[in-house]
Amino acid sequence: MEIAAYFEDFTKRDWQSDPEGTLDVAVVGLGNWALNHALPAISEAAHCELTTVVTSNEHAGQEVAREYGIDHVLNYEEYSDGVANSVYDSVYVVTPNGTHLEYVQTAARNQKAVLCEKPLEATTSRAEELVGVCDRHDVPLMVAYRMQVDPAVRRARELIRDGLIGDPVHVYGNNSVQLLEDFPDADQWRLNPDLVGYGVSVSDIGIYPVNTTRFLLERDPRFVQASAVSPTDVFQDVPDERCSFLVEFEDGIQSAFTSSQNAYSESHLTVVGTKGTVELSPAFHLETELTIQRGGTETSTSFEWINEMVEEFEYFADHVLSGRSIGPDGRHGLVDMYTLEAIYDSIEQGRRVEI
Amino acid sequence: MEIAAYFEDFTKRDWQSDPEGTLDVAVVGLGNWALNHALPAISEAAHCELTTVVTSNEHAGQEVAREYGIDHVLNYEEYSDGVANSVYDSVYVVTPNGTHLEYVQTAARNQKAVLCEKPLEATTSRAEELVGVCDRHDVPLMVAYRMQVDPAVRRARELIRDGLIGDPVHVYGNNSVQLLEDFPDADQWRLNPDLVGYGVSVSDIGIYPVNTTRFLLERDPRFVQASAVSPTDVFQDVPDERCSFLVEFEDGIQSAFTSSQNAYSESHLTVVGTKGTVELSPAFHLETELTIQRGGTETSTSFEWINEMVEEFEYFADHVLSGRSIGPDGRHGLVDMYTLEAIYDSIEQGRRVEI
Repeated sequence: MEIAAYFEDFTKRDWQSDPEGTLDVAVVGLGNWALNHALPAISEAAHCELTTVVTSNEHAGQEVAREYGIDHVLNYEEYSDGVANSVYDSVYVVTPNGTHLEYVQTAARNQKAVLCEKPLEATTSRAEELVGVCDRHDVPLMVAYRMQVDPAVRRARELIRDGLIGDPVHVYGNNSVQLLEDFPDADQWRLNPDLVGYGVSVSDIGIYPVNTTRFLLERDPRFVQASAVSPTDVFQDVPDERCSFLVEFEDGIQSAFTSSQNAYSESHLTVVGTKGTVELSPAFHLETELTIQRGGTETSTSFEWINEMVEEFEYFADHVLSGRSIGPDGRHGLVDMYTLEAIYDSIEQGRRVEI
Repeated sequence: MEIAAYFEDFTKRDWQSDPEGTLDVAVVGLGNWALNHALPAISEAAHCELTTVVTSNEHAGQEVAREYGIDHVLNYEEYSDGVANSVYDSVYVVTPNGTHLEYVQTAARNQKAVLCEKPLEATTSRAEELVGVCDRHDVPLMVAYRMQVDPAVRRARELIRDGLIGDPVHVYGNNSVQLLEDFPDADQWRLNPDLVGYGVSVSDIGIYPVNTTRFLLERDPRFVQASAVSPTDVFQDVPDERCSFLVEFEDGIQSAFTSSQNAYSESHLTVVGTKGTVELSPAFHLETELTIQRGGTETSTSFEWINEMVEEFEYFADHVLSGRSIGPDGRHGLVDMYTLEAIYDSIEQGRRVEI
């Protein structure tokens, strides 16, 4: 099969069932990601309707209510008490990592479908509880790995699955951002170990190359090795202002990544196979450019911009409404949590850690 | 200073003194690299003259003699005995890694300047002997790291030195080749531990990102971690058909690389700083494209093709003839040997190894 064929119908939603109805969504947490990315995406998604926001910031909540024409602005206590819970069918949890569990517990008790931001929680034990409560209440749980609905990433997976780059051999890449330029506040939750989890750069952004590689290769991590430092004062409570880490996947596929929360914003992922390469560059910052190399030739494909967040909410609504099982589910998210814990163990112990 | 200024005089040889005279060169070893890359480069280099080749393959030697119009084709015994040693001033050693020492010993005893292929030898102890013999006989020793004379790499180093990408934070990249497509022979020296050294992919090609990073950052490696597998039968005697490895440089700069001798031919190196990035892609396969990102803008610079091998021989001749000290010298090459040994120790022991 020719590479070009994979791109003929590039923007198609290969997962779409187009069910009847609309999923009413409550957004729990009104930080930057919710305000600037999630809320606009929900508005745009055909099968989603925002009905409710949950926030401790009454003022921000009222502004959102005006802008999006919704009637329900809850504080966390009201949310926990089930106020207005008849006006939403699902909950998008976009609060600091270490607080996901309690908001998901409430949602599960109230029989709401859950879309939870990544990583699932601050620690593996809390993440296991989170997955467990959704299982017990039999509610759908999706982990918000938006890369998995990016059309470029999905076409790349098809290419790899069909053997167009031969057998995958290794993967390398980077994800770096300027946390303090984006959020100039030393007291932010990402710098607080209780809220962020084992560390900052790998759990928040280094997880992108890991999870995207899992998705592209359809294989899970086996071993990790990692090294990290936090030379800057405001990062002193987290081990990994900057980190380099190795992840060995099933079949001995090697990967090597770097991540930093205090470096120029850049993202890259290349899968090297025996017969070609797949490169995503930029990769993870809501903009993806795909380049395929094979047989000495290069096919670079810049696509029209696809809003991954719209894709994510459409996917979530589509699957909840049609009752189909969801792609990045709780068990999938737990594997990332075990990988993160292993990476931070390796940073501390300076040795190879099995997952 | 503007980025563009670094490229105004891109191809300039910032090291050139243009001395009088010509350096007569003996090439020791007539493998693929000598035949296809070194001999043509020596012909082209203004200050070099090929006078002698040393080979166990009389037929190949005579062909080279005809093609390049030289009179002296020696076998290894004749070379060792000093036959015709008045017709060359310098020796380029391009034999299997584990044989460099004896040919350099001969050269040093005969007061010849030495350009030795990388890595210096198969093991650190033999490499130390090699450097020691050149020291004792007071002959110039250059290690053939051609990336260090690539104009793109040199301009990139200036940019980084002048702070145009801020403080370097981390580096990532890859070097992979299809060894068995390039040389379809299971008995080749690169697959023989006695001749190649600790392993195959890192010592032969993974050393490129390590050494180029050393040059670009002007800092040395401190710690390594590595993981490797050899799933293919012909690679069973070497540990690293494919490898992923971390190198922590001075100032806590993290790096993460992959290398393979049995994957699609690809090479990449990106330095991520606090204010920008420097990317070489392709990086190491005799062709280099440099891209600078800074302040949200990208400057991509494809240059006219520069033959790094010509640059290398010109540099070597220039410095030997003018008596100036040489850039990648023996001590520089030894640091790479210590790094290689540490990487292979880490592969075996699954732990962080100090260099």
